[in-house]
Amino acid sequence: TIVSVLEEQESPFLPLKGKRVVVTAGPTRERVDPVRFFTNFSTGKMGYAFARKAKELGAEVTLISGPVSISEPLGVKVIQTESAHDMYEAVMKELPQSDIVIKTAAVADYRPATPLDQKMKKKEGSLSIEMERTTDILGEIGKAKTNQFVVGFAAETTEPITYAKQKLIKKNANAIVVNNVSEAGAGFGTDTNIVTYINGSGLEWNLPLQSKEDVAYQILIQVANELKDGHT
Amino acid sequence: TIVSVLEEQESPFLPLKGKRVVVTAGPTRERVDPVRFFTNFSTGKMGYAFARKAKELGAEVTLISGPVSISEPLGVKVIQTESAHDMYEAVMKELPQSDIVIKTAAVADYRPATPLDQKMKKKEGSLSIEMERTTDILGEIGKAKTNQFVVGFAAETTEPITYAKQKLIKKNANAIVVNNVSEAGAGFGTDTNIVTYINGSGLEWNLPLQSKEDVAYQILIQVANELKDGHT
Repeated sequence: TIVSVLEEQESPFLPLKGKRVVVTAGPTRERVDPVRFFTNFSTGKMGYAFARKAKELGAEVTLISGPVSISEPLGVKVIQTESAHDMYEAVMKELPQSDIVIKTAAVADYRPATPLDQKMKKKEGSLSIEMERTTDILGEIGKAKTNQFVVGFAAETTEPITYAKQKLIKKNANAIVVNNVSEAGAGFGTDTNIVTYINGSGLEWNLPLQSKEDVAYQILIQVANELKDGHT
Repeated sequence: TIVSVLEEQESPFLPLKGKRVVVTAGPTRERVDPVRFFTNFSTGKMGYAFARKAKELGAEVTLISGPVSISEPLGVKVIQTESAHDMYEAVMKELPQSDIVIKTAAVADYRPATPLDQKMKKKEGSLSIEMERTTDILGEIGKAKTNQFVVGFAAETTEPITYAKQKLIKKNANAIVVNNVSEAGAGFGTDTNIVTYINGSGLEWNLPLQSKEDVAYQILIQVANELKDGHT
């Protein structure tokens, strides 16, 4: 038909066609009171690049985003969230009907234990903010997943590869993408990244400095290949 | 001359001509470690509106900005800062050569007492973050100022007017603009604001819901009038 010919001309390479991909992106915000919060330097660029590239490669994409300043990608379902708890609920709701989960979001590990309803009044001297652990979203996905291919992310400043290998096993993930946020051109806020992709088969693949779009593209093709080969 | 005729046609009303205006805007970020920080919901819209309008009204404008996602206004000197300490240093450097200081920035009152050089490792259980007071920028301006007209801002959720009147005296400011951040259409992130302008002569002027541009315009004209009448 005319339609299929056009589609083929526009995007002949669709290795993720028929796949439902869930991407989480950006930071989360954990409120101290109505005006103050705890967060991190994630800008969402890596996750938004994954969402756009997954769509280009033929997938049906749901992007679960924390608060960022990037325009929503076209043709992608976007779920806006604020806190780690919001993001956890959104991810667990999407998980059953997904094939691939790309967890780039820099979810807060801790949140204020007792957020205030009114703005905290400042006082003389110091102050102690009690923090409690948030739900470990990657860990919960690892427990709940059936046949989904799950890619976790790690952003460590010390011994990133060792940490990522432990994380892969502990979280029951299929792959971990390691960001060394201390390298120039890598990590939060930049348009480029330097990552290492590791998987359960012992692959340790170093992707040199390149745009976040290119990092996303290469990793998605790798994931598509692993899925085709039967990852479980 | 041709130039002065053109200037008159383009902007005949220049009540701030010859005045040097310093505006602070946006939130500050107070680091816990290389990736995590405390901040607040300020987006910088109110301060950037003041900077643009002050420029339009003829002033020479310096905008000292925290991390925001707004484009830099044309014809304005912009100093980018991150923390309360950065902003304090920039403001004190600009103060001696300024005529008007508009302090819209939502500067953190507290910062982590011992920020870490490496990313904090997460552990089981809760965590306590020790916070210390940042330098009170408005208070330091109040001590150091000579003939500058200083406008402070207050964003309180409880008894905002009472609090602002105390702040006016305590900080030796010339005026305080009160934001009730709990009213719809006011405060952080919105394009509109509802404020009350109070000054040392007992004026309590309620500005109804309107764009942040219009709030800035009206307050700058009021300040220009108070300066003309001899504010000290």
